[in-house]
Amino acid sequence: MSILIKNTTVLTQDKNRRILKNTDVLVSENIISKIGKFNEKAEFVIDGRDKILMPGFVNTHTHAAMSLFKGFGDDMELNEWLEKKIWPAEAKLTPEYTYFGSLLSIAEMIKTGTTAFNDMYFFMESVSDAAKKACMRVIVCDAVIDFFDEKKAEITKNRTLKLLTYVTGLNDSLIRAATGSHAIYTCSPESIISQKRIADKNKILMHMHVSETQKEVNDCIKKNKMRPVEYLEKLGVLGENVVFAHACYLSKKEIDIVKKHNVKIAHCPVSNMKLATGGVIDWSYMRSKNVCVSLATDGHSSNNNLDMFKEMKMAALLQKHARMDATVMPAQDTLDMATLGGAQALGINAGRIAVGALADIILLDKKDISLVPQNDIVSNIVYSANGSCVDTTIINGSIVMQNRKLTTLDEDKIKEKCIDIAMTLCTD
Amino acid sequence: MSILIKNTTVLTQDKNRRILKNTDVLVSENIISKIGKFNEKAEFVIDGRDKILMPGFVNTHTHAAMSLFKGFGDDMELNEWLEKKIWPAEAKLTPEYTYFGSLLSIAEMIKTGTTAFNDMYFFMESVSDAAKKACMRVIVCDAVIDFFDEKKAEITKNRTLKLLTYVTGLNDSLIRAATGSHAIYTCSPESIISQKRIADKNKILMHMHVSETQKEVNDCIKKNKMRPVEYLEKLGVLGENVVFAHACYLSKKEIDIVKKHNVKIAHCPVSNMKLATGGVIDWSYMRSKNVCVSLATDGHSSNNNLDMFKEMKMAALLQKHARMDATVMPAQDTLDMATLGGAQALGINAGRIAVGALADIILLDKKDISLVPQNDIVSNIVYSANGSCVDTTIINGSIVMQNRKLTTLDEDKIKEKCIDIAMTLCTD
Repeated sequence: MSILIKNTTVLTQDKNRRILKNTDVLVSENIISKIGKFNEKAEFVIDGRDKILMPGFVNTHTHAAMSLFKGFGDDMELNEWLEKKIWPAEAKLTPEYTYFGSLLSIAEMIKTGTTAFNDMYFFMESVSDAAKKACMRVIVCDAVIDFFDEKKAEITKNRTLKLLTYVTGLNDSLIRAATGSHAIYTCSPESIISQKRIADKNKILMHMHVSETQKEVNDCIKKNKMRPVEYLEKLGVLGENVVFAHACYLSKKEIDIVKKHNVKIAHCPVSNMKLATGGVIDWSYMRSKNVCVSLATDGHSSNNNLDMFKEMKMAALLQKHARMDATVMPAQDTLDMATLGGAQALGINAGRIAVGALADIILLDKKDISLVPQNDIVSNIVYSANGSCVDTTIINGSIVMQNRKLTTLDEDKIKEKCIDIAMTLCTD
Repeated sequence: MSILIKNTTVLTQDKNRRILKNTDVLVSENIISKIGKFNEKAEFVIDGRDKILMPGFVNTHTHAAMSLFKGFGDDMELNEWLEKKIWPAEAKLTPEYTYFGSLLSIAEMIKTGTTAFNDMYFFMESVSDAAKKACMRVIVCDAVIDFFDEKKAEITKNRTLKLLTYVTGLNDSLIRAATGSHAIYTCSPESIISQKRIADKNKILMHMHVSETQKEVNDCIKKNKMRPVEYLEKLGVLGENVVFAHACYLSKKEIDIVKKHNVKIAHCPVSNMKLATGGVIDWSYMRSKNVCVSLATDGHSSNNNLDMFKEMKMAALLQKHARMDATVMPAQDTLDMATLGGAQALGINAGRIAVGALADIILLDKKDISLVPQNDIVSNIVYSANGSCVDTTIINGSIVMQNRKLTTLDEDKIKEKCIDIAMTLCTD
């Protein structure tokens, strides 16, 4: 299919961060094929005059099916919350529930401008199926947890291999598999090494939680006489195909190690604040070292939504607050994390509007009251806009939402189904 | 006029914070006259089945006309920003510009569920006119700044008296005047005392910024040998009709003084973070002492919107982060600040759905994806919802928005006008 968006404002996110006025963008198949002013025919033409065209967001750390637990057990102490709420509810999960929970999250992401996400959870075949149904770009990995038990490690390894086979079988360029290790305190070193080997062999990503809390760091130092990233380097599992979620408590030395191995960071400010970890990534040092930092919402239980607009605002505000410096993490850098940073982290040729890039594009309603007046479009997007400003979402050259109506999913049906499932799962 | 909302979910915000299912609410003139199940006729009937009916938000500290400066000079160091951006732009303000800037903010507030606001700025007659036009509830005060100059103090005093006369002349129960002192570092003690006397004599509020930054506290200690609230107590200007915006750096002793005089707090978490003051109100101590804490967005220049949903989320997250305790400021307390707290702070008989209370009501779209599933309605509202979930806004018994369409204002015209004005004002 070809799509032509006429006379629009284009936030290119190119090297010079150019904003083009009154510009046409042509999408051919799944690629942005032409940008400028031209007379071209297309199967589908969109009047872009009152729109801002920009790259879709890339959400680099999620647990999509947790949408089912939204609002279930907020404001609780972590262990109590896990033991009394989340674990009993998760024990009741099925592939079908996971499928519908993932559909709900994917619908929310499309409606708030996210065009790709990096998901770690259970029943990942169901997450893949949901993404395929929605025409959503996703990277799926099993939440590998073995609690240092060899048998469990073997089971989780086999699950990872099975998922890989399943995703290969889907033969859909939108769905990719990754390996995953939940964290250094839930996975044996052998298991982490094994997951990294599978990742390298298959040229896929490895996704893990790292240094989310001070306790994790302290425990690691006590057990291994070194900090988490030093420990992971010693295991030989660092590399450009590795994504660290959180990374709040990295020392400068650890950030240097991250840079040396070109590991990617998925920064989750709302989750860090809501779970009261006290952690704030050392963004300025990461930025000064050109570490690839992306942005992520984490799951609904620690957020409670997947709106990358809110996440951008929170990221910028948390840095300014923590550093007591209003100039830290300016709007453009924040937007870069949510687009370019995410695409780079996940190895997707997107996150910018350029000829040859994947057509993962969103159109914002330029006349939404949050975007008026237009003293600074980037500032408006980061500090003022909502997910509801997104009018149209295009993923891989397919229009998955237009005029806020989903084209690949039956939103009402998904919501009804998820309300029913949540009532089954979330009972005390 | 009478309005009947049928078969709806009612978030009462009553003493027991009851949530009523399948309930009817009758509005007669400007008052909520009946709640329950009944057969009653009304001029206007709304099907409430897919709605959540709740009190409108009360935003207790704003500078509405600064909507014109949205995104102009973000991420800058405070003094540079004021000197290079805001002051030159403000110097070009006119009553007409202020009128339209205020209309834009009022439109945004109505669209995001705010039904009353407490505004401090310049050309407050224009703000009053804008609120009157919109049928918006407002308390207006001049930003009194005299820089310890007797002549300026006299001028500002006269301006306050003139505004009082103007508002009295409007004879509109929605528009009330207040006195104001910008801050202790911009107003002489005589001027602050004078404003308090005018407030007391006329039974109106006094609105001022207090303890926004550590510098303000340090300077006060240096100059007056006491902290700001102690200084204001010594001046004899504390009382139940006083609203302190910010109040980030109050000592426990100062909070005790605030409580003793029943002073009200307008908490502005986004502004505090964006301006990187490092300040976090000591909410837990205030709560333990039953201090009236309300919620506010401050102006667009330090936010950059007036969405009380975002403000609630930020308030709860900032407390959890700063105290490293996920149980601090739970969702219900956060919602209370934004509704009950605000109404109490401004002396408005609203902030709850009760027979006899003012009909300042909003209806949320219960099927908005951010509110699904419904494990916990209050949590969904605080942590997940957006201003765009608001479907209908009723102020003083008048429907000012229905199906997201404003009824008292021409939104498109206001936006066009404000884009033009901003281009005139915001030039470097």
